[in-house]
Amino acid sequence: MSSPDVTVGVDIGGTNTVFGFVERNGACLAESSIETRAQDPPEQLIERLHAAITTLHAGIPSHPSIRGIGIGAPNANYYRGTVEYPPNLSWKGVIDVVGLVRKHMDVPVAITNDANAAALGEGMFGAAKGMKDYIVITLGTGVGSGLVANGQLIYGADGFAGELGHTIVDPAGRWCGCGRRGCLEAYASAGGICRTAFELLAESRDDSPLRHIAFDELTARKLADAALKGDKVARAAFDRTARILGMKLADAVTHTSPEAIILFGGLANAGDLIIGPTKMYMEEFMLNIFRNKVKILPSGLTEGNTAVLGASALIWKELER
Amino acid sequence: MSSPDVTVGVDIGGTNTVFGFVERNGACLAESSIETRAQDPPEQLIERLHAAITTLHAGIPSHPSIRGIGIGAPNANYYRGTVEYPPNLSWKGVIDVVGLVRKHMDVPVAITNDANAAALGEGMFGAAKGMKDYIVITLGTGVGSGLVANGQLIYGADGFAGELGHTIVDPAGRWCGCGRRGCLEAYASAGGICRTAFELLAESRDDSPLRHIAFDELTARKLADAALKGDKVARAAFDRTARILGMKLADAVTHTSPEAIILFGGLANAGDLIIGPTKMYMEEFMLNIFRNKVKILPSGLTEGNTAVLGASALIWKELER
Repeated sequence: MSSPDVTVGVDIGGTNTVFGFVERNGACLAESSIETRAQDPPEQLIERLHAAITTLHAGIPSHPSIRGIGIGAPNANYYRGTVEYPPNLSWKGVIDVVGLVRKHMDVPVAITNDANAAALGEGMFGAAKGMKDYIVITLGTGVGSGLVANGQLIYGADGFAGELGHTIVDPAGRWCGCGRRGCLEAYASAGGICRTAFELLAESRDDSPLRHIAFDELTARKLADAALKGDKVARAAFDRTARILGMKLADAVTHTSPEAIILFGGLANAGDLIIGPTKMYMEEFMLNIFRNKVKILPSGLTEGNTAVLGASALIWKELER
Repeated sequence: MSSPDVTVGVDIGGTNTVFGFVERNGACLAESSIETRAQDPPEQLIERLHAAITTLHAGIPSHPSIRGIGIGAPNANYYRGTVEYPPNLSWKGVIDVVGLVRKHMDVPVAITNDANAAALGEGMFGAAKGMKDYIVITLGTGVGSGLVANGQLIYGADGFAGELGHTIVDPAGRWCGCGRRGCLEAYASAGGICRTAFELLAESRDDSPLRHIAFDELTARKLADAALKGDKVARAAFDRTARILGMKLADAVTHTSPEAIILFGGLANAGDLIIGPTKMYMEEFMLNIFRNKVKILPSGLTEGNTAVLGASALIWKELER
């Protein structure tokens, strides 16, 4: 039997760097992870990553042939092959990550940010399989997005396209981590919905178990639990978040007219608490020609690590160009 | 001497239908127009158009060879080759315009809406020549747009992508012609800036010649004249319009990260009154990674009819696929 072709999908996170060997059909033959050690220089991470890939590879009985390496990382630039001023790593300035990896392994290497990798993964293996026009939104610590049109990811003129988390909901609104006011991320991220819950606690006089939780102790998970138990304030926080997210998704539809929008990440895991109402508000704010056409779907990446699958899809796509 | 290759660019408007023979380099060999007669059935327009094309063609000494026909029209759908429920024509329902044209002329025919045609024209012959990622915004009676990413126009899942005029500025804002509230078009169109002027007349107590003009008599042109003469209210109307447009352009940049945004149409002709302040506000609202990267440019289509050039570019582009 001939050895299968695989690509290596790598996800560099603030704490761990996960990697796996993925076949063209999305089957993950093996997966492992190493510590990122965010305070160490990037050369050391890439050296340790190379060693770990080699070890895991040696242990796979079918001896797969490595066709390329795809990497997802925060603040990655696809065009330049770099990671630039990453917020969760102490790497200084602009790091040529593709160049560092290619010092160790002579195969095609590509890098992009986590949300773009997720979008490519959904298109190749997940909920957007067969679609040419779709958007993936990640609702987690931040709000990220990947836009696909005409079957291609939109990188834009400088490689940073698809930052829907930083579209403006209200120019006089909440402060966002980016230094501006009123970004979608300040409302529709895990932290954003918690801020909304405190806004509601301040506005209303309703009793709520949330009144016993300090600002720094509240999480989207605790909010979801309270909402599922029927807490009025928690339910209102999901509703208000869905209304803002739905309005901005309607705006996104007027830009690229996707077939579907796929919601992904921590807050999206709240499922019916967020996806149903977001769809309802999106339709309410939708221009008539787009109404009742755009699906809102949960992620279709179920097997193994979604970030690894996305990074693998990135390089499979490059190999097929 | 061999006869040159041309395409026919056609722009179907509410009053006139303009057409011309355009070479691949953008040179327009001849141009003419017929009345649209909006109340007549579309079959008759296409018959008269065919006759007029034939007559004009016969009169060109170099006997150009017609390679294809491109059409720009309101509510046109590129995928289906149709015009659907056009607002300014009394055509009923969905009209197969490409099919009607092909009954008379056996060459490739394509159709798209006016703003998309303008975007293709700017890319092939105008201000966006050589760019792969750019946006064209038409500021006229309405606000239209065409988005280009990866060198391709974004049509989206159903052919109606790029309706930036109907992104939402304020969900509790002004009524828009589309039946919703707070669309960009209700602020940044020729009519929108006039509404803003009346809003300012109501807010302020400043003297202004605008206080002698009825709502239905005010035009963007009169406003521009007043602003150029130093009228405070008219200047404030341009400033407020530019702020809203700049904010929504910053949002558009976070979607597709264009190299440039090209402003086009009646209101854009006000030049420095609108382009300079729009650029300033766009930068103010811009996410840091995009700041000072995106050009705002006036149209680069100077020769002949811009809509004809755009429609011609549409079919040249098809022929080169």
